[in-house]
Amino acid sequence: MPYVNIKVTGGNEAPTPAQKAELIAGVTKLLQDVLNKNPATTVVVIDEVEMDNWGIGGKTVSQLRANKT
Amino acid sequence: MPYVNIKVTGGNEAPTPAQKAELIAGVTKLLQDVLNKNPATTVVVIDEVEMDNWGIGGKTVSQLRANKT
Amino acid sequence: MPYVNIKVTGGNEAPTPAQKAELIAGVTKLLQDVLNKNPATTVVVIDEVEMDNWGIGGKTVSQLRANKT
Amino acid sequence: MPYVNIKVTGGNEAPTPAQKAELIAGVTKLLQDVLNKNPATTVVVIDEVEMDNWGIGGKTVSQLRANKT
Amino acid sequence: MPYVNIKVTGGNEAPTPAQKAELIAGVTKLLQDVLNKNPATTVVVIDEVEMDNWGIGGKTVSQLRANKT
Amino acid sequence: MPYVNIKVTGGNEAPTPAQKAELIAGVTKLLQDVLNKNPATTVVVIDEVEMDNWGIGGKTVSQLRANKT
Repeated sequence: MPYVNIKVTGGNEAPTPAQKAELIAGVTKLLQDVLNKNPATTVVVIDEVEMDNWGIGGKTVSQLRANKT
Repeated sequence: MPYVNIKVTGGNEAPTPAQKAELIAGVTKLLQDVLNKNPATTVVVIDEVEMDNWGIGGKTVSQLRANKT
Repeated sequence: MPYVNIKVTGGNEAPTPAQKAELIAGVTKLLQDVLNKNPATTVVVIDEVEMDNWGIGGKTVSQLRANKT
Repeated sequence: MPYVNIKVTGGNEAPTPAQKAELIAGVTKLLQDVLNKNPATTVVVIDEVEMDNWGIGGKTVSQLRANKT
Repeated sequence: MPYVNIKVTGGNEAPTPAQKAELIAGVTKLLQDVLNKNPATTVVVIDEVEMDNWGIGGKTVSQLRANKT
Repeated sequence: MPYVNIKVTGGNEAPTPAQKAELIAGVTKLLQDVLNKNPATTVVVIDEVEMDNWGIGGKTVSQLRANKT
């Protein structure tokens, strides 16, 4: 019955459908292995966050990526 | 003053504007009826989650819907 | 498959177990009535938030309640 | 190490990239000033919520904005 | 830079500190393996939800556990 | 009408009531200054997360703090 929310950067860094499926399968298995949770009722939601909307160190990811170029 | 977040599948399963309004009115009334909460400050946010981004039973909803066809 | 999160004030304003059960039954039924969602996989999580930890209008609820006395 | 999530209305009320950067810088500085939190590991995520998907007082923001016209 | 939130039932079903550490290590590694995300900035928050506060199928987990006895 | 959620470590690192009030006042003012949001309907929720339940770099904060001693 666990609920998992995974937030990652989207846009040109967004995971592919296959990668999303792999994340969902992987975290569901992890909860089964570690806590014996029933996979049938484990819910996972992935949010893709635009790089303008994600900040770390007081900067948006857009600003950080631009500085790297 | 309650805050409610409702996550449902989006894409071709997304609720219509009228259904969203009905959900918001309904959950606001529920909080008033059960807990006597003031509707004026009850906040509701609906998130529509893409079917690739929602998992249950270790599969994405996209995979589950495809299996049903 | 919807996921619902309800945040309300806790402490001496916390809902009773019976009220929590009523909220969970009510919002699950609402999603079935409005969107035809399957109750069996509708997940609801209630968070009780301490009055020092909830703010509205730039004040904590503790401050607002104290002002009312 | 704090994590901050800010939800605001999107669509034609969405913040500009410059405003988002200002919010992220501002809340990161606030956490440093008040709690001495390390800006380097302060994470901020901004969600823009469509006006059909945000409710207050039992109405969607779309309904409220239409009433004002 | 991903952010992960894991909600599980608490009380007498709460994970031990060692299990929490295993979940955090496991999901951080999963994000590195699948998406090449930097573990140093991967943030994970685990919420333990009381059984009165978690609902599935329109019932609280407390009600469901009581029915099983 | 914005909604803000701030998660910080709790336990012996938990903010005092005065610091929480300062965070709530500060972030409400920030949203007014940057986006002209109405403070009266700005909602802020602070979550205090136990150090066993917060992970960064694949370790719990409890493990990281212990390593520092």
